[in-house]
Amino acid sequence: MPGADLDAIVADIAGTLARAEDWGEVASYIPELAKVDPAQFGIAIATADGRMLVGGDADTGFSIQSISKVFALTLALGKVGDQLWDRVGREPSGNAFNSIVQLEQERGIPRNPFINAGAIVVSDVNLGSYQPRVAIGEILRFIRYLAGDDSIAINGEVAASETATGFRNIALANYMRAFGNVHHAADLVLGLYVHQCAIEMSCRQLALAGRYLMLNGRHPDGGRVVPPGRARRINALMLTCGQYDASGDFAFRVGIPSKSGVGGGILGIVPGRASIAVWSPGLSPSGNSHLGTQALEMLAQRTGWSVFSPPEG
Amino acid sequence: MPGADLDAIVADIAGTLARAEDWGEVASYIPELAKVDPAQFGIAIATADGRMLVGGDADTGFSIQSISKVFALTLALGKVGDQLWDRVGREPSGNAFNSIVQLEQERGIPRNPFINAGAIVVSDVNLGSYQPRVAIGEILRFIRYLAGDDSIAINGEVAASETATGFRNIALANYMRAFGNVHHAADLVLGLYVHQCAIEMSCRQLALAGRYLMLNGRHPDGGRVVPPGRARRINALMLTCGQYDASGDFAFRVGIPSKSGVGGGILGIVPGRASIAVWSPGLSPSGNSHLGTQALEMLAQRTGWSVFSPPEG
Amino acid sequence: MPGADLDAIVADIAGTLARAEDWGEVASYIPELAKVDPAQFGIAIATADGRMLVGGDADTGFSIQSISKVFALTLALGKVGDQLWDRVGREPSGNAFNSIVQLEQERGIPRNPFINAGAIVVSDVNLGSYQPRVAIGEILRFIRYLAGDDSIAINGEVAASETATGFRNIALANYMRAFGNVHHAADLVLGLYVHQCAIEMSCRQLALAGRYLMLNGRHPDGGRVVPPGRARRINALMLTCGQYDASGDFAFRVGIPSKSGVGGGILGIVPGRASIAVWSPGLSPSGNSHLGTQALEMLAQRTGWSVFSPPEG
Amino acid sequence: MPGADLDAIVADIAGTLARAEDWGEVASYIPELAKVDPAQFGIAIATADGRMLVGGDADTGFSIQSISKVFALTLALGKVGDQLWDRVGREPSGNAFNSIVQLEQERGIPRNPFINAGAIVVSDVNLGSYQPRVAIGEILRFIRYLAGDDSIAINGEVAASETATGFRNIALANYMRAFGNVHHAADLVLGLYVHQCAIEMSCRQLALAGRYLMLNGRHPDGGRVVPPGRARRINALMLTCGQYDASGDFAFRVGIPSKSGVGGGILGIVPGRASIAVWSPGLSPSGNSHLGTQALEMLAQRTGWSVFSPPEG
Repeated sequence: MPGADLDAIVADIAGTLARAEDWGEVASYIPELAKVDPAQFGIAIATADGRMLVGGDADTGFSIQSISKVFALTLALGKVGDQLWDRVGREPSGNAFNSIVQLEQERGIPRNPFINAGAIVVSDVNLGSYQPRVAIGEILRFIRYLAGDDSIAINGEVAASETATGFRNIALANYMRAFGNVHHAADLVLGLYVHQCAIEMSCRQLALAGRYLMLNGRHPDGGRVVPPGRARRINALMLTCGQYDASGDFAFRVGIPSKSGVGGGILGIVPGRASIAVWSPGLSPSGNSHLGTQALEMLAQRTGWSVFSPPEG
Repeated sequence: MPGADLDAIVADIAGTLARAEDWGEVASYIPELAKVDPAQFGIAIATADGRMLVGGDADTGFSIQSISKVFALTLALGKVGDQLWDRVGREPSGNAFNSIVQLEQERGIPRNPFINAGAIVVSDVNLGSYQPRVAIGEILRFIRYLAGDDSIAINGEVAASETATGFRNIALANYMRAFGNVHHAADLVLGLYVHQCAIEMSCRQLALAGRYLMLNGRHPDGGRVVPPGRARRINALMLTCGQYDASGDFAFRVGIPSKSGVGGGILGIVPGRASIAVWSPGLSPSGNSHLGTQALEMLAQRTGWSVFSPPEG
Repeated sequence: MPGADLDAIVADIAGTLARAEDWGEVASYIPELAKVDPAQFGIAIATADGRMLVGGDADTGFSIQSISKVFALTLALGKVGDQLWDRVGREPSGNAFNSIVQLEQERGIPRNPFINAGAIVVSDVNLGSYQPRVAIGEILRFIRYLAGDDSIAINGEVAASETATGFRNIALANYMRAFGNVHHAADLVLGLYVHQCAIEMSCRQLALAGRYLMLNGRHPDGGRVVPPGRARRINALMLTCGQYDASGDFAFRVGIPSKSGVGGGILGIVPGRASIAVWSPGLSPSGNSHLGTQALEMLAQRTGWSVFSPPEG
Repeated sequence: MPGADLDAIVADIAGTLARAEDWGEVASYIPELAKVDPAQFGIAIATADGRMLVGGDADTGFSIQSISKVFALTLALGKVGDQLWDRVGREPSGNAFNSIVQLEQERGIPRNPFINAGAIVVSDVNLGSYQPRVAIGEILRFIRYLAGDDSIAINGEVAASETATGFRNIALANYMRAFGNVHHAADLVLGLYVHQCAIEMSCRQLALAGRYLMLNGRHPDGGRVVPPGRARRINALMLTCGQYDASGDFAFRVGIPSKSGVGGGILGIVPGRASIAVWSPGLSPSGNSHLGTQALEMLAQRTGWSVFSPPEG
């Protein structure tokens, strides 16, 4: 797709959505997030050939929340490799994102690494023998390296806000510890988890950080972040499990492997072509960004970038 | 991928799997299927540029079973369009393929058209105002047209074998009828359903029948079977829901939109590139062909055809 | 309790409830039952010392529905003894009365003989090698014998009404047949089941029919209906499982082993003291007679007949 | 029942069970309890007319564990009355005793006060505005008063043992706190809960402590512990919910309102007649004392004390 065309598409999407009537509802269960103005929209696309296209509020920082699970998973796989899959499944959950029912039926093994329970196990792995402070530093450095931007930081107020209200996550961590699938004390594991979720990035930074997944595992600087097969598999998990309980519908409508967060961001990967970040803080009932989902659907239709369409370029 | 290379890959896969030690277990709950010799394997690939590559028992007929759900869904969407989605969901089920629990919790709306309950609703749509005999004739003609082969037929003994033992399907149909989501009498709807499942095809015929899904909805003869967006969406459903409760793992390992059947066949679609049929009657515990899954995983690794890898050709 | 006192209590309850403002909602899912006038209330008490006390519409016939499960269970235990418990459990269900979820999780073994699934297994036992017509005759004769009243009959229109709409019961029967826990064809078993539910009795007749359960298993004519231990166990099942999903609350508030039906009747047993029948067609959301439950609660408070209070007489 | 007869029955039961071949399995999930010798059995019966009958190891102390839930419930009802039932249900759970599934489906309201989740809510009520140490003291004093024995004490090692391993309870408490149904911090509430469970009593002390429930709410010293209706209702809850997921079967076989604990004790109440304590540390798979259940079944058969039999004495 010629650069001019893509520029026009991005401008058109940003323009159309800026006039939206229904912005969705901002997440209310994390007090700090509830303060965000819903009438914002940003988009950034990093292409495989090195361009960056932006629209709307592409440089406004937002809380990446569950999108951090993609980077945390990448880090954990680097530490323990496929042994991770003894402790976490790879199937869509068929339940709400913070469900504990599944966990009881499957004896403490979360269905996939993108539901909260699975991400808590991933944090338990990433904590390893570190102090939480050190483990938090490691994941922050990893994301800065991926995005090539050392200004990325954690919003301490958001982290504190989650720490104070995250009773369900404390329940999940202790519940899995009862089954032996969380090894550290819940407060340590969740200390890492909530700080990782509280990382703030702009669409531009997020699109840059996702490039290794479109480039078969390589950093644009030439370094290898993960082997090609692992990049492919993370993309697969994003498609089947990345949008909470609406992942099937998202695959059906959009067809781009993506991971959403309750801060309103979505990271989408078109293998070999583009790393896309969209953001709008209002959510649909499924917990995914209302306008962000629309933006990706429009983009997929205009570009033919669904992984389920023939590659035309 | 040059034809010579692909030929070699197919020959290698067929040769390797012919020496398999573990062939899996043939489905036992349908008496006629339990009689099939497990030590068989076939593969056929129809490419977008019109080639046909075959290996092993590619011309042996087998019962397509749940693979028929792809063709039945295509037919039903042609009849009622997106209204179908008022009666069937688009999310992975997170449960075994014949589960009735989901159905109770979601008040008679099956999670997707590839679990048995969803396929029964699709049959209810395809039955419409027809006699079952007429509706069965229509789907058979549709598959013959897609494959360009009028010799494809229904195995009456398999159909009779399922009719006699399909108590769970009778339960599912009546259960959804109690919620108003099946409109016809269960025996009529299931008459259509079991005959459609009892269609016999070879790998060669099945790969030919699947070509419209790799060709953006076009028949190779130039006719349009479905609009491009619908072909894309059917491929998406095959990826997220096509392998019963192992769909997530299959996407993770293979990354090719596929639909399996308990007869041991799998139809896989690589958009823009290939329509693939593999068959081996032995199943893994998840109900999918044991060697068929291995064959597709080997093929994806050797060709890079996963939808989650960059398209290299 | 002196006869005069009990007479006054019965008169007072009947008088109070005849002025009720909220009569509950008549069951709507069985068309014939939906026609019944809700503003009716009857009560009859057969005491261990041979008295009969009545109040309100005690001689109006109503559909006994699920109350028939008590008599059908008694009959089935007479046929196969404790082997019945290999096919039906004895635990409260913790779910709505027509739930199929439990059945899937417990592989076709219903939790107790008073939920629909369990009663269908009991009907399968009572059908035995009989034609349905013969089995229906047997249970009708049994109830006539217990009540000492040959005028008790089946309402054919209610039976036909249920047969036409009972899709959930067809689902349950086929579902259990898939697990091998129903042996006969669903239409034969359900033919017996719906006719048994469609038996019509008045409060007076029902209180008479229940006497064997207050008399340690003996018919007032001196004959033994069941051994003492079996009468005791049937009473226990009525207490723990007799009021659908409100059995615990009913035990808490009333404390009298009872079985309700959606026709608005309730049979209550006070061991060694009384067999009680109340009827009012309007139901509470739990599916139990709204005023019938109130009547039994008032009666228990005034007489001290709860099994959880010290016997004072 | 004449005293001599009952003496003989108690002696016979104690003698028979002392020769048992299968003692069941001692609870292993609480390390301190796992050390107890399983080959012990005790029984004590306090009758309404003031006798005390004992057999076997009736004066050996054991951890009362979940039996404490009866006394804690009594105390909480005294504090907040029937408002308690806004936060806890009264239905059997239909699930294992530490299940969290029910809790999710019913939005943080436990099914009854005898499953762990319900007992944690009761502890939250009993904690009130106290320090845990004070609340622990209050319940200990209450039990000493009921039993008339100031030597009853808490086993600190058992409490510490549970505190260290009770991850599921921490999960439950935080989970309900997420729904707003636990008001205090989990560690405070569970501090009270585990100390209450770690109270040690002998069969003799336990039978004495249970007398108010057989005496319609009165202490044998003449004081009123609870109103008669409340004693009746607590007995009802013991019958429907007192034996974990085997409550229905226990009602069927024994018919005496009872509460068991994983320490191997069972408290049984025969209204107007007897307060019974049995103890044997080995458990059946349902988590109830194996020989304790047998002892109560033998006792019910020999005495006719089931609440579902006519009172003969």
